[in-house]
Amino acid sequence: MEERPLTGISPPGRIAAPGEGIGQDELSLAARNHGLPLEALRYEVTPAGLHYVLVHYDIPDTGTGTGSDTDADTWRLTLRGHVRTPLELDLRDLRSLPSVTRRVTMECAGNGRARLSPRPVSQPWLVEAVGTADWTGVPLRTVLAEAGAAPGAVEAVFTGADHGVERGVEQDYRRSLPLPVGEDVLLAHTMNGGLLPPQHGHPLRLIVPGWYGMAHVKWLRDIELVDTPFGGYQQATAYRYKQAAEEAGEPVTRIAPRALLIPPGFPDFMSRTRVVRPGPVRLAGRAWSGYGAVVRVELSTGGDPDGGPDGGGGWVDAEVLPRGGHPYAWQGWHADWTAVPGTHTLLVRATDASGRTQPLRQPWNRGGFGNNQVQAVSVVCR
Amino acid sequence: MEERPLTGISPPGRIAAPGEGIGQDELSLAARNHGLPLEALRYEVTPAGLHYVLVHYDIPDTGTGTGSDTDADTWRLTLRGHVRTPLELDLRDLRSLPSVTRRVTMECAGNGRARLSPRPVSQPWLVEAVGTADWTGVPLRTVLAEAGAAPGAVEAVFTGADHGVERGVEQDYRRSLPLPVGEDVLLAHTMNGGLLPPQHGHPLRLIVPGWYGMAHVKWLRDIELVDTPFGGYQQATAYRYKQAAEEAGEPVTRIAPRALLIPPGFPDFMSRTRVVRPGPVRLAGRAWSGYGAVVRVELSTGGDPDGGPDGGGGWVDAEVLPRGGHPYAWQGWHADWTAVPGTHTLLVRATDASGRTQPLRQPWNRGGFGNNQVQAVSVVCR
Repeated sequence: MEERPLTGISPPGRIAAPGEGIGQDELSLAARNHGLPLEALRYEVTPAGLHYVLVHYDIPDTGTGTGSDTDADTWRLTLRGHVRTPLELDLRDLRSLPSVTRRVTMECAGNGRARLSPRPVSQPWLVEAVGTADWTGVPLRTVLAEAGAAPGAVEAVFTGADHGVERGVEQDYRRSLPLPVGEDVLLAHTMNGGLLPPQHGHPLRLIVPGWYGMAHVKWLRDIELVDTPFGGYQQATAYRYKQAAEEAGEPVTRIAPRALLIPPGFPDFMSRTRVVRPGPVRLAGRAWSGYGAVVRVELSTGGDPDGGPDGGGGWVDAEVLPRGGHPYAWQGWHADWTAVPGTHTLLVRATDASGRTQPLRQPWNRGGFGNNQVQAVSVVCR
Repeated sequence: MEERPLTGISPPGRIAAPGEGIGQDELSLAARNHGLPLEALRYEVTPAGLHYVLVHYDIPDTGTGTGSDTDADTWRLTLRGHVRTPLELDLRDLRSLPSVTRRVTMECAGNGRARLSPRPVSQPWLVEAVGTADWTGVPLRTVLAEAGAAPGAVEAVFTGADHGVERGVEQDYRRSLPLPVGEDVLLAHTMNGGLLPPQHGHPLRLIVPGWYGMAHVKWLRDIELVDTPFGGYQQATAYRYKQAAEEAGEPVTRIAPRALLIPPGFPDFMSRTRVVRPGPVRLAGRAWSGYGAVVRVELSTGGDPDGGPDGGGGWVDAEVLPRGGHPYAWQGWHADWTAVPGTHTLLVRATDASGRTQPLRQPWNRGGFGNNQVQAVSVVCR
């Protein structure tokens, strides 16, 4: 018997009315998911509890990652479908395979959504849905080679253990990648040197360096090779760039360039406006792109994001640190500013090696994906 | 030269207008602070990244707690004021003193604020600002005995390293406790067996078991004994139960009783409505109170929080687990329910040994403190 859609609890996607405040549904998501407090941009590697978290359904009951679980005995990763040899691997199998560690900056595809006008109703990120971690695991290619792709296989479909309802349809969280997969894609069992915390996918997650977070399937339990492109909700309906609900749209993939500033000075509790003293202020932050190295970070200290094509003030170059040994991690940058009494808006903008840069006015799309409008930080100098 | 108040960036406290959605200022706080995803009530000890976090200003730059910091060399705790022997202790000193470990359930005093009508404008918690951790540290009494209270000392004032603006006035985060302090109060340097994460007060925080979170001063760097009650903002203005801004109000202290249910089944992404299958469902959760053991947890499965004095449905007793060896930690509870097709509202209510219980309709106060209205979970049975 086919179950009827759960339409009553699962309304269609919605765009907020002009001036409409954040609703209780959006707030429920904001209270359980969380962003990086921007002062935590100071850490090159984000401590686990400060890394952004977006959980679509529930965190599954797969153990705590504290070492006292029995998950190592019960967890299985299956590889099946268009493979030569179906596999069932436990965590001991995976941990015994040669592993690599990659420092990866991850960002939610919906970062910046709540700054859009009109605002797509979903997880209401402002600018903080990002983090960087050291992920250790087995290259996906190693495991796929062991299973062997059968003729006709075109994609790998990844299934996580989280389960819920989207637009009335019950489903597991599921995403695909085209074959062959990149050599940088990992099956990660370790984050920052320890077991994965529950909210980051314990005991196993996919890491797809350079891509937005939706690709990094958490609580990974199954990989299926398929001979036709995967048409599941999170691939073909959500996470598409489109203007109207009925469009097919273009898939959301790599991370657009972005720079963020560690807000200088100290904040007012409620307004979060920053206060600095007159004199020299070191401005610093991080910048990243899924399309290549960040080659330029510019700063405007007299800016207004609605003030015109140059932000209302001149742009000056910050010093950008090289990528070093971590091609998928954010890069540090800094610039010196002499604060004078008054109110200032600081703007910062990254440009990557592909020539992509950040807009002052964000082009709109219906899902609120891939936003990288320049950050604006209000500062009062006493 | 006295600095003028920063009134321009720091408006007075505000109550939202009827029907007013959550604003960008509240959302900025919701995106950087975070609650416990309710499914994480399944863990008796909350993994650090899932424990609720409320940071008033910024997380100070006091190290990452990963062991590679030099904070152990530079951090100092000073004890001064009305003491016989002023002290300056470093972390080695503190870690060398006899320590104890306490399992403590901590809740933000503002939990539930966003469910109030009208809504006080501040961090907009719904119901999830809670967590339980094992805190290890030195009893505060040990250190106070070493310094020795001078005649006339009536309170200890605790200063954290976080710095910001409240109502136009620049300040450090600061709270006091009356003398003598309880034997259960700790100077904690360890959380769940590891160093404190940055957002939980690394390298040292106060733990005041049974009290709301505002008392557990993070990034603790100074203790001053004073001979008149402390009149600072966080003690005498904020964290008071009052109906109008000009009242003195009563201080917020201990945690009112509350039970929370692990939402059963699985959720719709956006509405968070739960879906279960017909048949037996084990309902379980946690309950706690700062006034004594929880002696009763009642459940209503036909309830409506606005449906009348009994919630619109009968209440049945759940089985409450004893406190065991952890008198300051939440207690588990469970009850069996047979789900039948339809829409249900599950309500849960705790009563503690002092006779305090949870209201169906929350009495209002201007700061939105001490809320413990019964939780309502909407469930659809297919």
